[in-house]
Amino acid sequence: NRKKHRSVESLVSAILEGNITALSQAITLVESKNPEHLEKANAIIKHCLPHANKSVRIGITGVPGVGKSTFIESFGMHLTALGKKVAVLAVDPSSSITKGSILGDKTRMEDLVKNKNAYIRPSASGSSLGGVARKTRESIILCEAAGFDSIIIETVGVGQSETAVHSMVDFFLLLKLAGAGDELQGIKRGIIEMADTIAINKADGENMKAAKLAKVEFNRALHLYPQKASQWQPKVTTSSAINNDGIDKIWEIISDYVTLTKANQFFDDNRMDQNKFWLIQTIEEQLKNDFFNNTEVKIELAKQLQLIEDNKTTPFAAADYLLKLKL
Amino acid sequence: NRKKHRSVESLVSAILEGNITALSQAITLVESKNPEHLEKANAIIKHCLPHANKSVRIGITGVPGVGKSTFIESFGMHLTALGKKVAVLAVDPSSSITKGSILGDKTRMEDLVKNKNAYIRPSASGSSLGGVARKTRESIILCEAAGFDSIIIETVGVGQSETAVHSMVDFFLLLKLAGAGDELQGIKRGIIEMADTIAINKADGENMKAAKLAKVEFNRALHLYPQKASQWQPKVTTSSAINNDGIDKIWEIISDYVTLTKANQFFDDNRMDQNKFWLIQTIEEQLKNDFFNNTEVKIELAKQLQLIEDNKTTPFAAADYLLKLKL
Repeated sequence: NRKKHRSVESLVSAILEGNITALSQAITLVESKNPEHLEKANAIIKHCLPHANKSVRIGITGVPGVGKSTFIESFGMHLTALGKKVAVLAVDPSSSITKGSILGDKTRMEDLVKNKNAYIRPSASGSSLGGVARKTRESIILCEAAGFDSIIIETVGVGQSETAVHSMVDFFLLLKLAGAGDELQGIKRGIIEMADTIAINKADGENMKAAKLAKVEFNRALHLYPQKASQWQPKVTTSSAINNDGIDKIWEIISDYVTLTKANQFFDDNRMDQNKFWLIQTIEEQLKNDFFNNTEVKIELAKQLQLIEDNKTTPFAAADYLLKLKL
Repeated sequence: NRKKHRSVESLVSAILEGNITALSQAITLVESKNPEHLEKANAIIKHCLPHANKSVRIGITGVPGVGKSTFIESFGMHLTALGKKVAVLAVDPSSSITKGSILGDKTRMEDLVKNKNAYIRPSASGSSLGGVARKTRESIILCEAAGFDSIIIETVGVGQSETAVHSMVDFFLLLKLAGAGDELQGIKRGIIEMADTIAINKADGENMKAAKLAKVEFNRALHLYPQKASQWQPKVTTSSAINNDGIDKIWEIISDYVTLTKANQFFDDNRMDQNKFWLIQTIEEQLKNDFFNNTEVKIELAKQLQLIEDNKTTPFAAADYLLKLKL
């Protein structure tokens, strides 16, 4: 396949022209496990970097059944109708196992898939969230270089993936369903605090009344949290993706958010903080992996844990002993 | 000073006999920065370990002004009246700067200080929470070996110290004041989730009505959280330390908690999990410190951050570059 062997220069110039095939090939290189591919990917990213960053990055999360695919379809179509170019990526570390990422099922986004101003890419597979997150962050740069000005990052909310997505977007949207009144019951720790807006989805037909009640309850809950560093007061709204109701409102909210945070510098400061976060995070993960995957450490760690359990050493003495093995 | 040069064996046997002078000397060794002292401390701890662990460890937190000293005085006197031996330690990483740890001001605990079944020790000083926490955890072992069956760990709630204390106790008590109705407003993230019981303190005189209202509101808030791994349903109660009101009730609650969690194994499992946490935590902290305090890494990190800011590299490429410096 000749196309697979296109040079870095050729791929970069095609990406900068908005060529989708080149973009897809570059993302495939980013997702590869072949060291040569990764080297090529790094070179492409480096050349794309000066052309990236000109976008709004929107994270969207919500439990299965909340209607995320339909929402993204409706929201994406609305954005392209406004003249925007929309890239949809996903962070789903479980996708290698379930092979069931929502974005994998493109049939749920029939119109958006066919739309020439939209690009949909399922989650990279991988067992570690850190690995998947890195690949997604690098794909964002490539999409931006290809001219996509609206980047949607979807996550199914498995494990820590919401926190990871929150750390790579400008705006974080939580989709919820109206429930049986006790809206906050069982909600995942910290998710509400991360949300810049909560949209009660499937607010249509018989659900309307419950959706409005949920809106009131969430609004009250949001006011209990301390003010965000962005100085943004999180909003609660209702939407019916299937009827295209409230979708335009959500884009208006996001536009207001961008206007506010660009004016008060939070938008740029936050992106730089995110960069620092990923730099430090990547180093710390690697240091830990190197240490704890060391064969001698593994054997001695098991022994030290047993000594702790038997009350023969303390966690601190054990740590000192293990650290001396590698230092 | 002859006493300062007592042998490890002599100190250990005195500690096991409940000798407070020996206990204090051993804790001073734990807190020392002299490597010889630390070696001696480690030997003492090792010999004390088989005699430790037989206690209830109670964490107490609350903002300045909540009446923590008076509470601990009243609570400690109640426990000694029940025939218990009470050690009060503190985790306050700021104490080296402010020299104003609450426990430093022993005049606020006049009766407990004089009580022969109580031992009060101010926080170790130190700039890092990890260091202070380690010294406190080691002091707990020494106190337990000296026969103290009720260990109170106080924290003023600076920075992450509440999380650290939560990770070294069996039961976590949050002291609150009744406020102006909006009780949850501005409360520190995660603190409510850590609490096994919230006591609305200073519930006396004109405060009674507000305290009862606060109790209702906190009770409602606590029910919104998912069930704890301990299967314990957190309680809300009122107390007036100055009148000794509600103090006995709090000890009853703690006793119920211990009965439940010893029966369902959580008590012991949690202590082992805490040991593992401190082992892993200590290693990870040390790995990070070794890396980021390296002179070359410091210089190159600053350069890489500038390159990121200038859009010339990604956080991941920068991390790869920095890791190669030391690997």
